[in-house]
Amino acid sequence: MTGGAPPRRVLVVGAGLIGTSVALALRAAGLAVWLADRDPARRDLACALDAGVPWQEGMTVDHAVLAVPPGSVADVLVALQKADAAATYSDCASVKLRPQLDIEASGAGASSFCGAHPIAGRERPGAAGARSDLFVGRAWVVTPGPATSGQALADAIGVATACGAAVTVMPPDLHDQALARVSHVPQLVASLLAARLLDDHVGAAELAGQGLRDTTRIAGSDPALWADIVASNAGPVAAVLAELAHDLERLRAALPSPVATPQPRDAGEAGPDDVLAAVRGAVLDVVSRGNAGRARLPGKHGALGSSYTVVPVVVEDEPGTLARLFADCAASGINVEDVHLEHAPGRARGVAEVLVAPAHAATLAERLTASGWSVHLPEQTDTV
Amino acid sequence: MTGGAPPRRVLVVGAGLIGTSVALALRAAGLAVWLADRDPARRDLACALDAGVPWQEGMTVDHAVLAVPPGSVADVLVALQKADAAATYSDCASVKLRPQLDIEASGAGASSFCGAHPIAGRERPGAAGARSDLFVGRAWVVTPGPATSGQALADAIGVATACGAAVTVMPPDLHDQALARVSHVPQLVASLLAARLLDDHVGAAELAGQGLRDTTRIAGSDPALWADIVASNAGPVAAVLAELAHDLERLRAALPSPVATPQPRDAGEAGPDDVLAAVRGAVLDVVSRGNAGRARLPGKHGALGSSYTVVPVVVEDEPGTLARLFADCAASGINVEDVHLEHAPGRARGVAEVLVAPAHAATLAERLTASGWSVHLPEQTDTV
Repeated sequence: MTGGAPPRRVLVVGAGLIGTSVALALRAAGLAVWLADRDPARRDLACALDAGVPWQEGMTVDHAVLAVPPGSVADVLVALQKADAAATYSDCASVKLRPQLDIEASGAGASSFCGAHPIAGRERPGAAGARSDLFVGRAWVVTPGPATSGQALADAIGVATACGAAVTVMPPDLHDQALARVSHVPQLVASLLAARLLDDHVGAAELAGQGLRDTTRIAGSDPALWADIVASNAGPVAAVLAELAHDLERLRAALPSPVATPQPRDAGEAGPDDVLAAVRGAVLDVVSRGNAGRARLPGKHGALGSSYTVVPVVVEDEPGTLARLFADCAASGINVEDVHLEHAPGRARGVAEVLVAPAHAATLAERLTASGWSVHLPEQTDTV
Repeated sequence: MTGGAPPRRVLVVGAGLIGTSVALALRAAGLAVWLADRDPARRDLACALDAGVPWQEGMTVDHAVLAVPPGSVADVLVALQKADAAATYSDCASVKLRPQLDIEASGAGASSFCGAHPIAGRERPGAAGARSDLFVGRAWVVTPGPATSGQALADAIGVATACGAAVTVMPPDLHDQALARVSHVPQLVASLLAARLLDDHVGAAELAGQGLRDTTRIAGSDPALWADIVASNAGPVAAVLAELAHDLERLRAALPSPVATPQPRDAGEAGPDDVLAAVRGAVLDVVSRGNAGRARLPGKHGALGSSYTVVPVVVEDEPGTLARLFADCAASGINVEDVHLEHAPGRARGVAEVLVAPAHAATLAERLTASGWSVHLPEQTDTV
């Protein structure tokens, strides 16, 4: 094991978005990079973008990065090993166990291979969308198998580090369970949701807002690539889809039959109100659990799993206003957890939302009001 | 009917994000605006932001905008009519049939009311997040009922137009079917997806990329508000959820049992390959239909329902390069449908992706190559 130094001479196989971006990043880090693709035009485009020079048969480099679909990793590895192309190998596929098992079963030398998955992408596919900074600060999971050599592991980590990524080491099967949850099932769900617009007969798409645009952004992805990814990770994907289907069925059971037409409510009838209460309860549960799940994403406020009360304070757009506010909060002796400033362009007044523990909200509002601030604590306090 | 002129004196009931934004927009358009909220602190915060002045009992204005949850529209309308608060009324609720039926059954004067729904929002709730430009260029659906007067319709349209929105008139039931599809079900699905992170035992959230962040952004929404919306539009929501459940079950049927552990493939076995082919087919279908549905969103490239071939041309970062390229494309006599320019910061070369009808791609590539351009048309052409 050579320690932290990256391999010096690297071959990148596959000149798509990921492969070309890896090549650009490694070139920027000062490494010598060669490029190969089964389609010479794709390789030449990447070379024309200065991502590297064309690979020639018979060459041997320190390390080869396979940026090919998960179903092709084992076959490409066997071919490269036969040609003695590199001393060690890693890949970029978003599924890790299936290629690892394929390699172990293929008779390829499993010791020279270390699985890897840089978690980054762009909507814009192909070399044209490639960027040398695509992986900076992003997760790059490295998944050594039982036979992986120290040198192969070190080289896979060296490539990731040279690209500016944050390396996480975990077993292939845990990686696949995690990715089914945060990537593969979200892709399928976004596609299922976007497909609903095909059954639209009332011009619904014209009324779509930003919510639908966000939830279906990844629905524009490549069907063939995703067919390969899901086929390679079918078990974990099926497990998360089963959870989803369970929750969906519970929600559907609380809703009235789709054919029911709303009728004017009659205070004498108990039935409709019971139905409404059941719908409300089911939706409250689903959206509340969604709140809690969303809060688990790193870097989101609320990830602490705790709730604060918002104390809204009107602030003028004048120098020193926020400094005065912070000083008065400090003088109150109450611990301020966070502050959000909302200030629309062209508006003379904004709102500073001061977040404190719920028990302290009323006291802080009183103290700030006494200091001359315009404070408007709602009776039903909002928590975040 | 007064034609296009908006009402001059307007009351806005409900000082949340939508109500305060409507008030700010109407003030910016020069109207006189009063504000009311069942919570005086919320009203005072909106007034402190110059959205209007506090409503006093006994006043009468031209028009009142009810920015309250769908389940409260009828009750608030009855109370306002009893106080003779306004000549005409409209609302902002994201469900239209349920409030309309409630109003007709309540004994309220249905003729002075015209349903309306401005389709805009922000993650940031409450008056603090309000903006006067929230509705500029956005859809504002107006849904007159059978008894709605011409004056009420004209005032609802006048308010929408004064806020800078694009007015669409449609019946309440069709609005609700459309919104179930583009808003209510996407909200529930985003929540169900985000809730999957609660069942995560392998640190999956740490590996989440931009895809999951986008698909679950709206999962941070208010559970109580959504319980009210879905309860008010349960039939259409159930119908779209049934479509979704049907497609989800078809996908699940193609996947192996969740407990199946991947095994090394054996070329002699027919079974696993059949299973893989079925998974690939099902995922191809789901993601392809998602592509097609996504393409129906207005303003997206591909909304023409047609496919073009991408001809990638390497372009130097020099003055006049694109002008020369367009001139050479024009000289080829081939109709260029669109051009995307990809140019990463700090890269000396970018790619101009020229989109043409598939039959013309090879010819254009030849002509441009003959003119000295670096063209790299893949063998398997990408279409968009």
